[in-house]
Amino acid sequence: MAVPIITLTTDFGGASPYVAAMKGVLLARCPEATLVDLSHAIPAQDVVHAAYFLRDALPWFPPGSIHVVVVDPGVGTSRAALHIILDGKHMLCPDNGLWTLIPHVAPPVVRYITAAEYWLNPVSATFHGRDIFAPCAAALANALPADALGPVVADWCTLPVPPCQVQADAIVGEVVFVDDFGNLITNIPAQVVPAEAKSLRLGKAMMSRFVKTYGDAEAGELVVLTSSSGYLEIAEVNGNAARRLDLGRGAAVRIERDALGGIKGVE
Amino acid sequence: MAVPIITLTTDFGGASPYVAAMKGVLLARCPEATLVDLSHAIPAQDVVHAAYFLRDALPWFPPGSIHVVVVDPGVGTSRAALHIILDGKHMLCPDNGLWTLIPHVAPPVVRYITAAEYWLNPVSATFHGRDIFAPCAAALANALPADALGPVVADWCTLPVPPCQVQADAIVGEVVFVDDFGNLITNIPAQVVPAEAKSLRLGKAMMSRFVKTYGDAEAGELVVLTSSSGYLEIAEVNGNAARRLDLGRGAAVRIERDALGGIKGVE
Amino acid sequence: MAVPIITLTTDFGGASPYVAAMKGVLLARCPEATLVDLSHAIPAQDVVHAAYFLRDALPWFPPGSIHVVVVDPGVGTSRAALHIILDGKHMLCPDNGLWTLIPHVAPPVVRYITAAEYWLNPVSATFHGRDIFAPCAAALANALPADALGPVVADWCTLPVPPCQVQADAIVGEVVFVDDFGNLITNIPAQVVPAEAKSLRLGKAMMSRFVKTYGDAEAGELVVLTSSSGYLEIAEVNGNAARRLDLGRGAAVRIERDALGGIKGVE
Repeated sequence: MAVPIITLTTDFGGASPYVAAMKGVLLARCPEATLVDLSHAIPAQDVVHAAYFLRDALPWFPPGSIHVVVVDPGVGTSRAALHIILDGKHMLCPDNGLWTLIPHVAPPVVRYITAAEYWLNPVSATFHGRDIFAPCAAALANALPADALGPVVADWCTLPVPPCQVQADAIVGEVVFVDDFGNLITNIPAQVVPAEAKSLRLGKAMMSRFVKTYGDAEAGELVVLTSSSGYLEIAEVNGNAARRLDLGRGAAVRIERDALGGIKGVE
Repeated sequence: MAVPIITLTTDFGGASPYVAAMKGVLLARCPEATLVDLSHAIPAQDVVHAAYFLRDALPWFPPGSIHVVVVDPGVGTSRAALHIILDGKHMLCPDNGLWTLIPHVAPPVVRYITAAEYWLNPVSATFHGRDIFAPCAAALANALPADALGPVVADWCTLPVPPCQVQADAIVGEVVFVDDFGNLITNIPAQVVPAEAKSLRLGKAMMSRFVKTYGDAEAGELVVLTSSSGYLEIAEVNGNAARRLDLGRGAAVRIERDALGGIKGVE
Repeated sequence: MAVPIITLTTDFGGASPYVAAMKGVLLARCPEATLVDLSHAIPAQDVVHAAYFLRDALPWFPPGSIHVVVVDPGVGTSRAALHIILDGKHMLCPDNGLWTLIPHVAPPVVRYITAAEYWLNPVSATFHGRDIFAPCAAALANALPADALGPVVADWCTLPVPPCQVQADAIVGEVVFVDDFGNLITNIPAQVVPAEAKSLRLGKAMMSRFVKTYGDAEAGELVVLTSSSGYLEIAEVNGNAARRLDLGRGAAVRIERDALGGIKGVE
């Protein structure tokens, strides 16, 4: 069998022992696993940030890879623990919707993780990453069939996604993710914006510099471009647009009709 | 032989080349090692933080794993470099007590690392992580017997642990660790606190919301619960208790007798 | 063939999905690769920081290792993508000079990465780390000969290195790197400073405490010592010299003749 790949995504931060404890549990049970850190700097309890992070990261991983995601404000409550097969990849995460923005082709197969024989014993009330998700991921890496973890279910939490609206007089959306550069990623797919678009309103600011890439403008300029995942993005060249504009997730974005040469339908 | 697992825990931070240099030395000498980052965000020179970090992280790793820990304000002075076998795991670290809170069953076997033939040559005065600990860890990963590193010793530095006192009228302890969520972890084992406990004094603040897990209270509430390592913890639900209360390590914690239905002895 | 080692150095930060996306691309194409994080906390767009980081980190890695470095303010412009063989190691990075401070013995073999059949398709304008560098690194890990990536070139960007001047009356240099401890690393090789040196001017401050290592002075003292890479360094013992002095890269450093017992030539 190939080397099992297990990735870790958490909001645990860098100075806490929680990531290390999970790695210990994983390696004690599957010493030959390749552990891959995706991020441990998801903002604390920020399920939405995690969801957009995963949307852009997970599609690149190969089938068979195992992904443990622990951003889990509901740990120890009645929220379920999920195992999902998503286009051949395994996800293990709390049932709070964080996986539901990940693009996929095949219908997901979702299970409640209920088979306690694969968990640590005892299970704490505050750290299911270590006590449930890590040992179950190790069990899968050791070739346990997924159906041993628990029953398939038909319902799970989803995240509300703010709509991108292509209206008669405007395209209206919002910022859904701010990256570490302070780039503001919107929910407006680049392909719905006509090439003739000349300006964009972000909060109270007007942007009129549409470029292909950062280096097409001067340092300090605010630019509008297509993000690496295909959405409209507002950036400050060699700077931090979020800090400069004091804007973040939820900031309104609007492209007026008179700034457009016509609006294409959403594909 | 199984793939050797070498973990790294340092206070080197993220933007410095020091962690990378250690990884280079390790992989140059043992290319098949699995390197595992535990943390490089231990606060600078904070041996106590490192000690509690390791206390909660190291027990989960399997025998045979090799753990390099470099939080080393005394580098280049007369402080010794240690190799420790702790329940079958290898630790390499400066002799400043950082490993001494790790629970273990068998008596530790402690060596001074003195055999310079396994070090880099020359050895700098300021970076033994790269020049001594990393090459010795690689040598162990390459199956060097531990006794080649140097002589067993009977004395080593230990860390003073603040006492948790179960008194006639109160349980008295203190905060010993603050995690990245701002949760305040105390030195009071949860099992010495009776289920009837109703309130807790932390610094000048009174806490009276005892819960099983974070989600049992509302966002913004201050709660008292059992940490994932079994100690009393004070948290703000979906918030940062350390920042809100402006408290950190050393903050006094007290459960008064009249808040108790009787005090059990420390186990 | 041995396990291929692929290292990653970026300015992408911890909460963005970009590092994770690169790891996905690498592991989808070469699942058996050992991925090694060097840093993802290079300050944004700071090619100079990256260059000094690599100068001190890369020499420790073994021949055959593959190093992807993405600090790339010029992404998507006409700047070239490079593959370099440097003493048997592979580097993949934008042509902005970031690799040019790495010490090496053999002349580097530098290629433009032009063979699009090894890239993702399509290639975004803003994320060549994912779309060009990662898949090419995976191809090399899968034993693709380097000459398949593109033609050897004779010109590439270099970084201007501030001179260290050994003058008749003084040694004059500057701070070139600030590490996470706030230690100020200069461009003055320790071996050009006579043992008799008694004081050093850093900005407007005079330093007169020359030591071998941090622990030779008291906490809070400002000291001058030899960095682990062999250059003069100014540090605050158990503190942060950069913050205390409010100085950083580019700060002038000067050792006056009257503080010297004579000045040796630069070796």
